[in-house]
Amino acid sequence: MGEHFEKLRETAGRIFDITSAADLLSWDMQTNMPPGGADNRSHAMATLAALAHEYFVRDDFGEALEAAEAEVRDLDPDSDEAGIVARMRRDFDKSRRVPTEWVRISERTIGLAFNSWVEARKASSFADFQPHIEKVLDLKRSYVGFFEPYDHPYDPLLDDYEPGLKLATVREIFDELKETQVPLVQAISDRSDAVDDSFLHVPFDEKAQWAFSMDVIRDLGYDLNRGRQDTAPHPFSQSLNRGDVRITTRINPNYIGSALFGSMHEAGHAIYSQGIPLSLDRIPSLSGSTLEAAHDASLGIHESQSRMLENLVGRSRAFWTAYYPRLQAVFPSQLGGIDAEAFYRGINKVERSLIRVEADEATYNLHILLRFEIEADLIEGNLAVADLPEAWNAKFEEYLGLTPPDDARGVLQDIHWSDGYFGYFPTYTLGNLISLQLWQKLSDDLPDLEAQISRGEFGDLIGWLNEKVHRHGGKYEPMEVLKRATGEELSAKPYLKYISDKYSEIYGLS
Amino acid sequence: MGEHFEKLRETAGRIFDITSAADLLSWDMQTNMPPGGADNRSHAMATLAALAHEYFVRDDFGEALEAAEAEVRDLDPDSDEAGIVARMRRDFDKSRRVPTEWVRISERTIGLAFNSWVEARKASSFADFQPHIEKVLDLKRSYVGFFEPYDHPYDPLLDDYEPGLKLATVREIFDELKETQVPLVQAISDRSDAVDDSFLHVPFDEKAQWAFSMDVIRDLGYDLNRGRQDTAPHPFSQSLNRGDVRITTRINPNYIGSALFGSMHEAGHAIYSQGIPLSLDRIPSLSGSTLEAAHDASLGIHESQSRMLENLVGRSRAFWTAYYPRLQAVFPSQLGGIDAEAFYRGINKVERSLIRVEADEATYNLHILLRFEIEADLIEGNLAVADLPEAWNAKFEEYLGLTPPDDARGVLQDIHWSDGYFGYFPTYTLGNLISLQLWQKLSDDLPDLEAQISRGEFGDLIGWLNEKVHRHGGKYEPMEVLKRATGEELSAKPYLKYISDKYSEIYGLS
Repeated sequence: MGEHFEKLRETAGRIFDITSAADLLSWDMQTNMPPGGADNRSHAMATLAALAHEYFVRDDFGEALEAAEAEVRDLDPDSDEAGIVARMRRDFDKSRRVPTEWVRISERTIGLAFNSWVEARKASSFADFQPHIEKVLDLKRSYVGFFEPYDHPYDPLLDDYEPGLKLATVREIFDELKETQVPLVQAISDRSDAVDDSFLHVPFDEKAQWAFSMDVIRDLGYDLNRGRQDTAPHPFSQSLNRGDVRITTRINPNYIGSALFGSMHEAGHAIYSQGIPLSLDRIPSLSGSTLEAAHDASLGIHESQSRMLENLVGRSRAFWTAYYPRLQAVFPSQLGGIDAEAFYRGINKVERSLIRVEADEATYNLHILLRFEIEADLIEGNLAVADLPEAWNAKFEEYLGLTPPDDARGVLQDIHWSDGYFGYFPTYTLGNLISLQLWQKLSDDLPDLEAQISRGEFGDLIGWLNEKVHRHGGKYEPMEVLKRATGEELSAKPYLKYISDKYSEIYGLS
Repeated sequence: MGEHFEKLRETAGRIFDITSAADLLSWDMQTNMPPGGADNRSHAMATLAALAHEYFVRDDFGEALEAAEAEVRDLDPDSDEAGIVARMRRDFDKSRRVPTEWVRISERTIGLAFNSWVEARKASSFADFQPHIEKVLDLKRSYVGFFEPYDHPYDPLLDDYEPGLKLATVREIFDELKETQVPLVQAISDRSDAVDDSFLHVPFDEKAQWAFSMDVIRDLGYDLNRGRQDTAPHPFSQSLNRGDVRITTRINPNYIGSALFGSMHEAGHAIYSQGIPLSLDRIPSLSGSTLEAAHDASLGIHESQSRMLENLVGRSRAFWTAYYPRLQAVFPSQLGGIDAEAFYRGINKVERSLIRVEADEATYNLHILLRFEIEADLIEGNLAVADLPEAWNAKFEEYLGLTPPDDARGVLQDIHWSDGYFGYFPTYTLGNLISLQLWQKLSDDLPDLEAQISRGEFGDLIGWLNEKVHRHGGKYEPMEVLKRATGEELSAKPYLKYISDKYSEIYGLS
């Protein structure tokens, strides 16, 4: 490649190093850091975020970018070089609108808000958290202000996680979901005793759970020479670079599903990050107002990968054809008397419940819907922070038929708002929808897929995802990735058909 | 405090954040990083080291420093404020002589040399490592050149680890050591069968070793709310900040001493770092040509703390009066038939051996002597890298009466030179000497010390070290810390008397 492009890559690589170090600080904070390190850690994270921003928005970076743009102008726009430069231009133009000092203050405010959220949740007291979330919201509103004009003040936030997507599109799709999914879940609930999963909720040896999960994610294609799994209170994946992509899981000693499906979910994220080619490594990308080391299309595309392995693979009859005998051999006393079909039904039990991260495939989107509507109202200014718990509980009753008994199991349950992640929640549902659109296409392309999965073979599946999704990294906007992979625009229909068919069969709905 | 001082603290705090992140990268590399992360990690470490340097040597930092100097001029020179400014001036003036680009190249070269050393040691082939160590030496020589004029080219290197100390002083002290210690070790060797330690070299359950070591270091005063212990191939301690000081240990399933004495040693380092007051936290300090998060007097003072807990406490009769019954209760089959005196003699067995990190208290300094003499010759240019293995083996024979059978157990055994640590080795021996000088004084000040240790009480001991050593952080040069604590200059005499008395008794020498 040309010298200007190389120079841009080198400068970007140094900024990437800062973001990658910041990502390690974050990983470590959630896995290893002793309590005494919290205060200095939030200082360090603010300093690195500000440094990465400062170097990225410099005039000389802009000049290097322009020189590289001139150099790649005649290249195939699908080349990695052209893709890198285009993405960097987009992130540079966005970042230039934001003062570095805003980044620093935002990170420090979030650090303090996060600590306050941990305490407020323990005490189940929204009032303790309220002043912090107000500060975070003020910051988000000032951030939105850097991007005027916009169609809706939520758009600049959403765009940080899902480049190119707007609230209007999300709202339209979510309304369509709501129309079908709320009554479907209601109908399932009316037949709730049709499925028994009590045998999943008994003691399972933790070491054996860990070992089985490790076997599964290795089989799926997670490369442990370029990754590692740890335990953490809140499971997550963290890509420091394509050679070091880490995941965490949580083992529940009295429920087999937590570690097992959690590991498969995070492995989906990790296999995506490991599949990004070397030619696209060492590039910082904007995500949620700060630069990060991950170079991917969007959180929605990411979530499509994790949801696919967790649900479309992990909760399928085909997968358990291969793995259930092995699982029974590890846990003969708990599962020896449960046949494969009963196990399949058990892991697909639908239940309206209070906690998003424990929600099943059929109810999950309803948890997202209410969060999306609430955060849009907050950002618009139609909802005051003081009224947040009440608004939460009202929507929860409307969509899920339950009223949270306290703030801890209601409005305080998620880490996201304390972490400044406004505009993030919809990407979970987008992931669900995209996973089905991709699955439909790859099932057409790989007619033998189900048989392969029944034999515990995942090479063609991961190969297809690599070819159609992973290898593009962050070169294309997410809807462009979807279009190239499937030929389609974003649609809820494959997802709605999937859950209607699957759960009608399991629950004997007409 | 004044506003200029506060401004300096804030700017220094941001540089500290970078060094603290770099230290986490280093800790993680040695504990958690998957192999695939190595290349990007060495990039990231070079970037952060260069960034910290770049911000530290800026004109505006120098101006902030001058303004703060003017502000603290009338303060008590022993105040923390005056001490911080003085230390920063020293590190600033040194760092200004070094181009940032040198720091970046040095870190990358070291990253590659380190990887080459790992492979060369595996293959036991010095020839594979030779081109890398030559590059590292070239860098060190160019570094030395930034500090002309000097008495000896080794002085600028030594000064980075042991501020104010010169080769001439070290040589004088080491010659004195050599004169007594070489014949002492010879005399002990002639009576080598007087002590049996075979009962230490049998299988010991790893979990039980870990649990016992954790109990001991907690009792000594290591605060686990501000630290954590992990396992690592090469034990080390890493202070990210005073609220997060980590140590590692290595468990040998067939030898009880490795984890036990290793943990006590590293706890000595950690208790020092945890004892540095909040008023001296968040200050970057120069150590070995890069800025680091640790703010301490020197490596020699650090090592005096670790050696004291490992040897003067951990290998004493008093300590095992308290702990041997507990250890016997944990390992009844291995130790039930061994009485306390036999155990004491066993853990103090002296043996001339090939590997420094496994060397006992009486032979350890001899390993350091030969390294010091060799690196001084290398830096002077009196020894060519190609002749290094031969020179190593000749000195080994002279001081320790053994000839290494291969490079892996000879010249390639240590990580230091591959990591660019020239001038570092003498600090181990200085630590031994200083630990005895401090011990002599604190034994005078605390007449009940031995009785306290026999009861497993360490509060007065750690309190004394806190008051006389820890709380000063990096305010004073190491020899000043020693002088203030003991009233003495550096001396080998207390150490020589200690090993002569102790080992004459154990080995029945006249």
